[in-house]
Amino acid sequence: MELEDAFSDFMRRDWQRKQADGTIRLAVIGIGEFARQRALPAIAEGSYCETSMLVTGSPARVSDVASTYDAEYVVGYDAFLAGDHVDAYDAIYVAAPNALHGRYATAAAEFGKHVLCEKPLEISVDRARNVVDACNDAGVTLMTAYRLQTEPTVRRTRDLVRDGVIGDVVQVHGGFSHPLLEHSDPDTWRLDPELAGGGALVDLGIYPLNTIRFLLECEPTTVFATTHSAGGPFANVDEHVAFQLEYETDATASCTASFDAHASSALELVGTEGMIDIESPFGGVVPQEMTVESGDVRMEYTGPRIDEVREEFDYFGYCVLTGTDPEPDGEDGLADLRTIEAAYESADTGRRIDLE
Amino acid sequence: MELEDAFSDFMRRDWQRKQADGTIRLAVIGIGEFARQRALPAIAEGSYCETSMLVTGSPARVSDVASTYDAEYVVGYDAFLAGDHVDAYDAIYVAAPNALHGRYATAAAEFGKHVLCEKPLEISVDRARNVVDACNDAGVTLMTAYRLQTEPTVRRTRDLVRDGVIGDVVQVHGGFSHPLLEHSDPDTWRLDPELAGGGALVDLGIYPLNTIRFLLECEPTTVFATTHSAGGPFANVDEHVAFQLEYETDATASCTASFDAHASSALELVGTEGMIDIESPFGGVVPQEMTVESGDVRMEYTGPRIDEVREEFDYFGYCVLTGTDPEPDGEDGLADLRTIEAAYESADTGRRIDLE
Repeated sequence: MELEDAFSDFMRRDWQRKQADGTIRLAVIGIGEFARQRALPAIAEGSYCETSMLVTGSPARVSDVASTYDAEYVVGYDAFLAGDHVDAYDAIYVAAPNALHGRYATAAAEFGKHVLCEKPLEISVDRARNVVDACNDAGVTLMTAYRLQTEPTVRRTRDLVRDGVIGDVVQVHGGFSHPLLEHSDPDTWRLDPELAGGGALVDLGIYPLNTIRFLLECEPTTVFATTHSAGGPFANVDEHVAFQLEYETDATASCTASFDAHASSALELVGTEGMIDIESPFGGVVPQEMTVESGDVRMEYTGPRIDEVREEFDYFGYCVLTGTDPEPDGEDGLADLRTIEAAYESADTGRRIDLE
Repeated sequence: MELEDAFSDFMRRDWQRKQADGTIRLAVIGIGEFARQRALPAIAEGSYCETSMLVTGSPARVSDVASTYDAEYVVGYDAFLAGDHVDAYDAIYVAAPNALHGRYATAAAEFGKHVLCEKPLEISVDRARNVVDACNDAGVTLMTAYRLQTEPTVRRTRDLVRDGVIGDVVQVHGGFSHPLLEHSDPDTWRLDPELAGGGALVDLGIYPLNTIRFLLECEPTTVFATTHSAGGPFANVDEHVAFQLEYETDATASCTASFDAHASSALELVGTEGMIDIESPFGGVVPQEMTVESGDVRMEYTGPRIDEVREEFDYFGYCVLTGTDPEPDGEDGLADLRTIEAAYESADTGRRIDLE
C-alpha cells in the first residue's frame, strides 16, 4: 500500500457494508457525566440509535435531560429490573458503575434486549462470563463499549499495520493519565474497588490495553505490572500503574496509567520497517494527528475531527440492525479482564504472569 | 520558574564555572566508526581536548586519520599497554569493545592518565568496579561517556524537573531502536556477548536507563525485563528488550530498546503538574525539539543544533583541567551495570529484581 492511500477517505466507515434501516431505541442506564456530556448527544446526532428511556437512581433529577433528548420514560433501577416499559426499548447502554454492569446487562438479555456495555465489562472474569453467557443464551447482541475501535485514527492505524507499512510490530508504548479528582469528588465510585474492580488500570489502563490488542490483532501471553498508591483518596485502588505485556508475535507493549498525573495520553508503535505515533489517542477527543514513518518516508497527518462516541453508537446500532457481530464483543471484554486480573496478581507477587 | 526562562540561553554550559586553561592531549583507543565519524571531529572542534595519539589494532590503516587530526603517534594495543609514548598524552578516550574497556582504562590509570570511557563502563559490575578502583587509587579522573548528560535539551529538561515545572514525575517512557545490521556486519562485536556483555539493553537501552536516572536524580529500586531474540545473527544476545523500573520516589519508567527495528527514539516524562516530551533524544543527533506542558500552558521549543559529542569532550577536558569531578563518573557507570545485570536476571527468572 502506498502510504498516502491510508489517508485518503480517512473517515471511511469500513465496517458499514450492508444497508441498515431504521433506528434502535436505547434505554440508557446510569445518567452520569459521561452519559450527559458525551453519550446522549452522540446518540442524538448519530444515525442508528435514539434514546427512548433513561434509567437512573434519581429520576426526578434527570427530567430536563429526558426532555432534551426526547426520552419518553425515566425509571429507577429497580423499575428497570422489574421490566417496566420493557417494550419501550430495543437495547440498553450501560454506563453505571462497573460492578453493576452485569446486573443490568443480564436483566436486559433476559428481556431479549441487545446490550452495549461500558468497559470493563464487569469487575471480574467470572462476573463478565455471566454477562456473555446470558447474552449468548438470549441470542442478543453484546458489545463492549471500546469506542476507540470505531475511531478513524485507530482504524486507519490498524489498516497500516495490517498492510505491513511498518513491518512487524516490535515494541509499543501506550500511556494514559487523567487527574481524576479535578473532575470527580473523592467519594466517586471509581475509587471504590467494590464498585470499580480496581483503579487506574481498570479505568484508564484498559484504553491502551484494548487498543493495542485491537491494533496488533493478537493476544498477550504474559503480563507484568506494578501499582502504586500514596494513600488518601486513592488508598484502596491503584493510583498509578505501569504494566508490560508480551504478545504471541513476541512484540511487547509498555503501558502506564495514572489517576493522579497531568492529563496526557500517547501511543507509539515501532516496527521493523517503520513507526506510527498517534497524538493523544485516549483523552476522549482524538485530535486525529498521527505521524507515520515507513522506511525513508515520513508523513504527518491531521484528519478532520470526529466524535468517536457517535461512531461507537452508530456502529452498535448498525450491528443490531444488520445482525452483524460487533468486533468489540463480550469475548473482547473478557480478554481484557483476564489480563487485568493477571496484572493485579503480578503487582502482588512481583512475578510475570502467564495468560491462558 | 517561568517556563520561558528555561529556554532562554538554552545552550548554556551551566557546568562551566571556573576558568579552564590549556587543552588535554588524548590517546583515542579504538578507531571504529564512532571514533572516526563523531569523536575525532568533535575533539578537534572543541576547546579543551586535542588528539595526540591513536591506538588501534591496525595502525597502518589509520595513518590518514592521524594526519587529518594531527595525531602525532599511532600505536597498536600492545604497544599502548607497554607504555609506548606515555608522555604524549594526558588522558585516554576508550571506544574499544566493551569487554576491553577495563584493560585499557586500568593501564592508563596506572600510567597516571585520566580516563573517559564509553558506556557501558565494562561488561559486568565486578569488572567495572576494578576500573573505578584503579582510577581512585591512581587519583585520576574517570568519566563514563554518557554524552547526553552534557546535551542541552537533556540538561534543560533536568532544570525543568528540578524546578517543579511538571510537579513530581510519575511515569516515564523511553525507547531507542536502531537497526544494527543496516550499519554493521553480522560479525560485529556488538553481537558477541563475550565482548559486548549483552545486546540491545547494553548498547541502546542504556541510553534511556542512564538519561532517566540523570533526569530524576534518584536511583531505581526494582527492575523487570523481558528479552527476545529471533536467532540468526542475534542468537546470542537480546535483539529486543523491554524493561520497567521503579524509583525511590515511586516513579516508574517503561523502557524499550531494539537492535532490529526501525530507527526511533522517544522520551516522555509525565508529572503531577505537567509533561515533557523530547523528540528523538537518543539517535546520536538530538534535534532539540521538546514539548513542555505545565498546568494549562503548553510550549513547543526547538533549540539550535549542537554536537553533543563536542559538548561531552569539552566537559571532560574542563573537568580534568579544573579538577572538577564529572557527574557521569565511575559510580554512575557502575550503577547502570547493576541495573543491567539485574534486568538480565529478571528476564531469565520472570521476576522483578530488587536493586541494592
